[in-house]
Amino acid sequence: MKDLLTDEAGELTIPVVASRAGVHATTVYRRWGSIGELLADVATSRFTGDIVVPDTGTLRGDLERYASDLAKDLCDPDTLALVRATIGIGGEQGAAACRGERQQQLEAILEREQARGHEPPALERTTDAVLAPLYYRAVFTNEPLTSAWAHGLVSHLLPTATATATAAATATTAESRP
Amino acid sequence: MKDLLTDEAGELTIPVVASRAGVHATTVYRRWGSIGELLADVATSRFTGDIVVPDTGTLRGDLERYASDLAKDLCDPDTLALVRATIGIGGEQGAAACRGERQQQLEAILEREQARGHEPPALERTTDAVLAPLYYRAVFTNEPLTSAWAHGLVSHLLPTATATATAAATATTAESRP
Repeated sequence: MKDLLTDEAGELTIPVVASRAGVHATTVYRRWGSIGELLADVATSRFTGDIVVPDTGTLRGDLERYASDLAKDLCDPDTLALVRATIGIGGEQGAAACRGERQQQLEAILEREQARGHEPPALERTTDAVLAPLYYRAVFTNEPLTSAWAHGLVSHLLPTATATATAAATATTAESRP
Repeated sequence: MKDLLTDEAGELTIPVVASRAGVHATTVYRRWGSIGELLADVATSRFTGDIVVPDTGTLRGDLERYASDLAKDLCDPDTLALVRATIGIGGEQGAAACRGERQQQLEAILEREQARGHEPPALERTTDAVLAPLYYRAVFTNEPLTSAWAHGLVSHLLPTATATATAAATATTAESRP
């Protein structure tokens, strides 16, 4: 997208979009007003409803699937170009459009874990530990978004069964002391 | 910056920059070629060398100071507008410029901890746990970057002394079993 939709100075403008679409620039301006609003609309339709919330039966499985899917999506050069352009030109509105439903999807995964009778980590903590590194790595670095790395984010968020059991046992021991 | 340096359509272009600077647009084009290169240069000078690597005597203290300083910096509307605009128009080069020396500063903090004779977390892990959430929250959300939240990122990365001691004790107990 970055290469197709910019002028000779590398800028994405409404006249460039209009020219590619074969319509007059005023037609585009009438509908969107600015390139920022246009991009925010594109991003909203792109990032809303495209990731199905996985139900693998466990929180760890759900989060691993979610992280891998998002990693794969953000690896796509068109997606990345759209995210970057929207952030740059769309301001607050664009930023919200880029987040799309990712946050709601994460919330749905955590709520399902609660419905299973378990206590999941808080949404803020999960966002910081899983969602944030995926976006940061995609948008700000050239590091690859591998599945192994994405799964590692989930491992750091969720203590292993052994660690949890040990902590519980230690807590019980501590409590039973005089 | 966002409000000062955009045209009526909300776009940041070289003619707008030239007009604000009181020079002819060709003068700006001759030096930078595109708005992306210009922004990347601005971001590089803005994000390089502006945060002194703190030395508080402990890794936890250093990271807390680093996270609070970065949070405060990213809260600044001008800084945020520059980061967003540079990401949007500057592509890979702009993204690298926005990261600036943050990564090297983090590396220096971890190396100093090693010099103190301790084993710090890996740079990748520290980036995911501390740097990424700060940038994600600033660029993609409207959530406030409070000091308490920034310190919380460090707490999640570094186990508390108690937890470490407990884990060590548990490991010792396990080892001493037949």
